[in-house]
Amino acid sequence: MEHLNRRRFMKSAALAAAALAARRSIAAGDSTAWSSDWAAQSVIDTRRSPFTKLHGVPVRAVTLHDGFWQARRVVNMEKSLPTMHALLEEHGRMNNFRRLMGTSTAKQIGPYYSDSDVYKWAEAASWAEQSDTGLFRADIDAIVKLLEGVQEPNGYLNTYFQDDRKPQRMTDHAQIVGHELYNLGHLMQASVAQYRATGDRRMLDCCMKFVDGFLFPGFGREASKRPIVSGHPEIEMGLIELYRVTGEKRYLDLAGYILEGDSRIPLTPDDIVYLFSGAPFTGRTRLEGHAVRVMYACSGATDYYLETGDAKYLATLTTLWNDLVRAQMYVTGGVGARRRHEAFGDDFELPNLTAYGESCAAIGNMMWNWRMLHATADPRHADVMERALYNGINSGMSLSGTMYCYRNPLAFDPTASGPIRNPWYDTTCCPPNLQRTLAQLPGYFYSTDHDGLYVHMFHNSTLDWKLESGVPVKVEQTTDYPWEGHVRIVVTPREAAKFALRVRVPGWAKTVRMTMNGAEIPGMSAGKYIEQARLWKPGDVVEMELGMEPQMLVADRRVAEDQGKVAVQRGALVYCAESIDQAGNIAPRELRVNADAKFAIKRDKDLLGGVTVLEQTGERLSEKSSADALYTAMSGSSAGVAAVRLIPYYAWANREPAEMAVWLDTAADKS
Amino acid sequence: MEHLNRRRFMKSAALAAAALAARRSIAAGDSTAWSSDWAAQSVIDTRRSPFTKLHGVPVRAVTLHDGFWQARRVVNMEKSLPTMHALLEEHGRMNNFRRLMGTSTAKQIGPYYSDSDVYKWAEAASWAEQSDTGLFRADIDAIVKLLEGVQEPNGYLNTYFQDDRKPQRMTDHAQIVGHELYNLGHLMQASVAQYRATGDRRMLDCCMKFVDGFLFPGFGREASKRPIVSGHPEIEMGLIELYRVTGEKRYLDLAGYILEGDSRIPLTPDDIVYLFSGAPFTGRTRLEGHAVRVMYACSGATDYYLETGDAKYLATLTTLWNDLVRAQMYVTGGVGARRRHEAFGDDFELPNLTAYGESCAAIGNMMWNWRMLHATADPRHADVMERALYNGINSGMSLSGTMYCYRNPLAFDPTASGPIRNPWYDTTCCPPNLQRTLAQLPGYFYSTDHDGLYVHMFHNSTLDWKLESGVPVKVEQTTDYPWEGHVRIVVTPREAAKFALRVRVPGWAKTVRMTMNGAEIPGMSAGKYIEQARLWKPGDVVEMELGMEPQMLVADRRVAEDQGKVAVQRGALVYCAESIDQAGNIAPRELRVNADAKFAIKRDKDLLGGVTVLEQTGERLSEKSSADALYTAMSGSSAGVAAVRLIPYYAWANREPAEMAVWLDTAADKS
Repeated sequence: MEHLNRRRFMKSAALAAAALAARRSIAAGDSTAWSSDWAAQSVIDTRRSPFTKLHGVPVRAVTLHDGFWQARRVVNMEKSLPTMHALLEEHGRMNNFRRLMGTSTAKQIGPYYSDSDVYKWAEAASWAEQSDTGLFRADIDAIVKLLEGVQEPNGYLNTYFQDDRKPQRMTDHAQIVGHELYNLGHLMQASVAQYRATGDRRMLDCCMKFVDGFLFPGFGREASKRPIVSGHPEIEMGLIELYRVTGEKRYLDLAGYILEGDSRIPLTPDDIVYLFSGAPFTGRTRLEGHAVRVMYACSGATDYYLETGDAKYLATLTTLWNDLVRAQMYVTGGVGARRRHEAFGDDFELPNLTAYGESCAAIGNMMWNWRMLHATADPRHADVMERALYNGINSGMSLSGTMYCYRNPLAFDPTASGPIRNPWYDTTCCPPNLQRTLAQLPGYFYSTDHDGLYVHMFHNSTLDWKLESGVPVKVEQTTDYPWEGHVRIVVTPREAAKFALRVRVPGWAKTVRMTMNGAEIPGMSAGKYIEQARLWKPGDVVEMELGMEPQMLVADRRVAEDQGKVAVQRGALVYCAESIDQAGNIAPRELRVNADAKFAIKRDKDLLGGVTVLEQTGERLSEKSSADALYTAMSGSSAGVAAVRLIPYYAWANREPAEMAVWLDTAADKS
Repeated sequence: MEHLNRRRFMKSAALAAAALAARRSIAAGDSTAWSSDWAAQSVIDTRRSPFTKLHGVPVRAVTLHDGFWQARRVVNMEKSLPTMHALLEEHGRMNNFRRLMGTSTAKQIGPYYSDSDVYKWAEAASWAEQSDTGLFRADIDAIVKLLEGVQEPNGYLNTYFQDDRKPQRMTDHAQIVGHELYNLGHLMQASVAQYRATGDRRMLDCCMKFVDGFLFPGFGREASKRPIVSGHPEIEMGLIELYRVTGEKRYLDLAGYILEGDSRIPLTPDDIVYLFSGAPFTGRTRLEGHAVRVMYACSGATDYYLETGDAKYLATLTTLWNDLVRAQMYVTGGVGARRRHEAFGDDFELPNLTAYGESCAAIGNMMWNWRMLHATADPRHADVMERALYNGINSGMSLSGTMYCYRNPLAFDPTASGPIRNPWYDTTCCPPNLQRTLAQLPGYFYSTDHDGLYVHMFHNSTLDWKLESGVPVKVEQTTDYPWEGHVRIVVTPREAAKFALRVRVPGWAKTVRMTMNGAEIPGMSAGKYIEQARLWKPGDVVEMELGMEPQMLVADRRVAEDQGKVAVQRGALVYCAESIDQAGNIAPRELRVNADAKFAIKRDKDLLGGVTVLEQTGERLSEKSSADALYTAMSGSSAGVAAVRLIPYYAWANREPAEMAVWLDTAADKS
């Protein structure tokens, strides 16, 4: 696997060179030349966005070498994407298209948003194509042919509402129209990914045909047209990325119309909460309703701000972001506390056992914060991205790459619940969403601005890109992050050049040291980008040493379930206890962490694909009571010594079913 | 106050004698003589119910003497009822009637169920009249005149939908019709209470006129009539009690129709959950939706079972009751975990800080269990009643009798919440509901069956009633319950008689001794009625000694917020910690109870009207962290010794605002 992997990166490097050549052929800012600079476009392409502070680098410009994420990405390419493609076939998602083309006699299957499963897989595979070309090209091409085969002359494309269900098309605003647009939004994201991978614009053409041929003539804010609502936000991001690719402002304006809502649509107040759409986005004051909808709406609204600079949007986004980090986000970066409506709860309503924390919502959280980082260059957004990525997103895919969490709770009792990981869900949003996140991951490591370069994330890797001044630059990172806190960054501009390198010091770091060519940089502090503005010469070295002492986190006193408890975090990783790691299989709810004792830090190469575990001597509180009543008299208790062993949260539920908890009771030395 | 109080009980005793005389004039079972046996009727009158195991005794047959409840009842009569009457006037609730009579120019005020506020007060005052005659007679009479002045010739009566809002009458099934029937249900309960206090049937006549004149002609299951739904269950209980008073089976049948629901009414699945009505009661499988609606529906359905013996009802009620006690009831007897929709949560969803626990829902819990006790004679129902009454209901009214909790949470943070006790709520359901519960309390102490007498509850008191054999009997209880566990019961039949006395041993008792005329009764155990079937002679004495050692209760491991915590209970009382009782004002969330240490039991006559407090040396865990973020690194912790002082839960929030918690972290001796 490792060998195969390296060969792929050779191919990747070759493609990156081709991309660079393609990019050079484009006059920056030439919006009419939209179809030719595909290889220079990042996950979101803000190079022409007037109100961004950052510009991304293409996925292909960053090559991850062996390490934490690369192991996951190899599994993603070799296991997750192929098996998910087979499952989509098996569950009839492609036959839904073939039926309309007359090449399959299968019946339409799956919910009315099932086409989006195919689009999300195509998007994931397309991002993967940037790093690992050729593996999925035939499959993607087959999907493109399905789209072309099914799209109606007027541009409409949705297998559920073609043929006999045509009369139901665009008839139910909150759900059906919402999901027709949701499907289209995912098609747009897939199209953009495919375009940025290969320059192939056939899927983009399908999208434009749908919007220009079907939506614009019939739908919009004009009195002569029917109103539309983004019942499941997603199309906003899609439309704005389509605008970024094409330069056609009508797509941006349509996104703006959708973000405003249209009062002609009769939505109840409950709808407007649940859908997080249908009313002006700028009237929102808190995160509420369906968490994935909320995160996608916020992402789209941030994209809209980046293009328009509308200050009301930034003000609303800031209010909502403060609600996120002060009252609504799990320590894992997961969001959406409630199973009912897959929704945000009240402020500080963050239960652990019943936490919903849908994988897609954590991914949406990362997507939103990536856009907010563009809008503000505030490193707190990178901190939230990192928290979500390493924990509440990463937990969503098994180490094998073929089993997925839909929910990502912070405590688990296997006797009270079905399996938490499954290979397939009938609403299979999370698996391809996890796949696209891993596939596009290199695109989140760096940004440029006119002054220089930002380093957001850490991994053995090579950046091969250029400064905005035009000077080509390579950056080599050597690190064992997130297991260790040392990061060596070698900066090699093609020629000596003045620019600023800004290295992110994560907010969690209690200590940090940084050197510039061996000389200590003074004034270090965490939660900042440390800027070195200088004349950079090839081979200049920045080294960073982050303190990796495990930390015990306590929650705001309004988080009821976490009181008297701690969550243990080391570096970017949140830890948890699984009963199977404890001597005697002690349930985490009986364990107590000694708040005054240090953890031993032990690397275990053979455990869970290689993890660092944390161990200490804590307590076990054993309560004797009969089990068959809601409340029973404790007939006695005893506290004994217990060896506490913690594993990274992302790796939970990869062995036999076990009880799990992130938040653990504490004991303390007597003072 | 004590002196005045005694004079009242002299009056009460005189009335009890009159009642007995009235009762004797009635041939038992003569349903045509329904208007003349009023003085013998209890809170619910099951004397002619074919499927009851118990028959109540009238409120007036039991005189409570000095003690725990009598202190509350004196405050209820002297403070709560008079001040609530004044508040109802001040907030225009009586003027709503006068407006329609032309004697007030005030505008209609309050929500469309505001008439029920007046009815609930009238009911409370009527029950009080049985123990303390004369105080409220004029006010009740004035209310009767309002009803008579406003009722339309066709029987309709609802100040909100008379006059200009007449076209909206009975137009919105789920809410408006539901609450028109809800109001009528409370009018029925008030009418029954007034009738049982005085024999005055004017209010009953209003109810019958409404049902016979307005409802029956237009509404019902027949195709020619419009369907109705009990959108807020309450009328079921009212109709069945009207049936019990009048013997007119059409009222029972109407209750049965309403309990079945009527599929002609277009209700959504969410409505059917929330309203806990509109679909067949016997199709319910769990407690869900609005908690007060659920408890009232279950109460009405149990009444229906007591009259019809329909086994499907008892099966459903048993299923729901098991859900209550295994998964949905707070340790205080409160129910309804969620603020949203004032609803039951999922099984084991029992948060403390955000617990809703509406006072009315706890009262509904007691009402339902009183009816279940009639259906089954199972002492577990009396245990639930006691738990709710002493804790989650009793907490609803301040010691002053003029401030009320609408919510009864199990933890509280005054900095994050408005005042928990208020003198008035615009939906002022809880205050008069608490008042009626205290006013009718003596009616819950005893029952008879054909074999003899049941003793359900304990208080200094005198029962002056008769066995079903006809033999008059007096029972004197002497006890300091719930503060102490000794109860002396002197039984004095007018002449020696063979019958069974069944004394309830509460389920919480860890030890119990009982003697019969000084001789130990063998085979004692808790959670049973201990039966003494013998020839009873005047002055025979049963004494019971219940162990009153404080108990630490633990919750089922699926109750997430209570893990690692204990609730302390002594006898019937659940305890809590308020920060103002702790040295240094330590917040309860920082306290740890030593699970292996005993509590010192200290009577404090001057505290909170006289309570027994529990004290022990526990721990304080102090966590040092910055306060302004959702998750912060604990920079150190220390555990010190802390004097833990607990007060009864019912007495919380009667001093300055303080943090409070029922469930407390535990420490344990090292084994």
